[in-house]
Amino acid sequence: MTLTINDFADLRSAEALEAALRAIGAERYHSNHPFHHLLHSGQLDKGQVQAWALNRWYYQSRIPMKDAAFMSRVVDPDLRREWSQRVVDHDGTREGVGGVTKWLRLCTGLGLDEAYVRSEQGILPATKFAVEAYVHYVRERSLLQAVASSLTELFSPTIIKDRVAGMLKHYDFVDEATLGYFQARITQAPRDSDFALAFVKQHARNEEERQQVCEALLFKCDVLWAQLDALHHAYVLEGGIPPGAFEPVREQGRVAA
Amino acid sequence: MTLTINDFADLRSAEALEAALRAIGAERYHSNHPFHHLLHSGQLDKGQVQAWALNRWYYQSRIPMKDAAFMSRVVDPDLRREWSQRVVDHDGTREGVGGVTKWLRLCTGLGLDEAYVRSEQGILPATKFAVEAYVHYVRERSLLQAVASSLTELFSPTIIKDRVAGMLKHYDFVDEATLGYFQARITQAPRDSDFALAFVKQHARNEEERQQVCEALLFKCDVLWAQLDALHHAYVLEGGIPPGAFEPVREQGRVAA
Repeated sequence: MTLTINDFADLRSAEALEAALRAIGAERYHSNHPFHHLLHSGQLDKGQVQAWALNRWYYQSRIPMKDAAFMSRVVDPDLRREWSQRVVDHDGTREGVGGVTKWLRLCTGLGLDEAYVRSEQGILPATKFAVEAYVHYVRERSLLQAVASSLTELFSPTIIKDRVAGMLKHYDFVDEATLGYFQARITQAPRDSDFALAFVKQHARNEEERQQVCEALLFKCDVLWAQLDALHHAYVLEGGIPPGAFEPVREQGRVAA
Repeated sequence: MTLTINDFADLRSAEALEAALRAIGAERYHSNHPFHHLLHSGQLDKGQVQAWALNRWYYQSRIPMKDAAFMSRVVDPDLRREWSQRVVDHDGTREGVGGVTKWLRLCTGLGLDEAYVRSEQGILPATKFAVEAYVHYVRERSLLQAVASSLTELFSPTIIKDRVAGMLKHYDFVDEATLGYFQARITQAPRDSDFALAFVKQHARNEEERQQVCEALLFKCDVLWAQLDALHHAYVLEGGIPPGAFEPVREQGRVAA
């Protein structure tokens, strides 16, 4: 069964909304994507894992910008303060700590050159387009939808546990220090998603607004899914790497020199 | 050889700029994409051709919005008036004519339901993200880069001729009336690209600005390429159709009923 937006016509209560959101996650969250199955079960080579980490670097780097864009639209100091913790989690309380740095450590731990990663040169265009779409969404839609688009975090603890266990088991080029980013997320993600879920349940006051919440989560699932489609096409299937994007063997020799 | 932005360091004159732009087109224009080879040589089935037309419908529908966004930023009436012809070409001088209508006719000629096409429900998320990135680019970058991002039209007459000839030859579900959109573009595209090329050659007054022009064309090539990557992944290779997107057999039965 493929859910569509029309399947959420019955949203008569906050509880019905939560059930609908969980149904969307069960079907659409990127834990279901074939690329993740390959990643977590040890079926990718080092270059493919590098491509994944490199492209998701771009996503990670834009998340605190997305959160700041959200805060820039909020009048209520309590909501801004609550949300600011997300930026702190990514940027750290001082240089060298925080999620963005940890993701960079994942990249360099996989053998990527830090300057190359930071240059963003090898990122797939499709990654950039999907991530920018998310940032624009949070800038332009209602605050309710902006909050709702973060609700994919509801489904991330499971995938993070599968990822850490699977990658440690299957890849000899990965260790616990390299995967440090995910350790923090296991506690941060539920705190963030609990808040966001309570927020949308309280602030979506009629069926139309609950529909908008569902649409926001569907949109965000598309953003995540499209990033894996692009990786899968470029680095797993015979689709070919788009001109200019990261090429595992050659680029590395060049940039690591 | 894969060109990168760094390969355009020598941009000492308007003529050097034109040569660089033509080199970018030769390497990066989506005429080189495997999906187009399949489309033009008769190797796609009707459902795959429908998926192409449906997704490009979204692109076509946003082009006049992109052009209006450009005009909204232009102070000079002469430049606005020149640019307005692009909107007229797409929207027509009255209802039922113009490029957008002709593209819709291509979709319905291929057996797609008009209401389904207009609903945008089956569009690949990656198509939307790429197209929106283009619209945002034209809204947010310099006018010089906004004009330069239209320069892919320099390379479209050849691909249009190949497409029309190839599709008429290979697909019995296509006729000249269905492909009417392209007939008009054969004269419109060179007029538009001649203007845009002269504009960037005149207004990019130093190497840095010529570099920016090259970057804009590279960006736009990425926008077109990413759309074909997404089609190729979803409808040709074993990547799988993203949840919610057009499914050739089943959707058609449903929406055409």
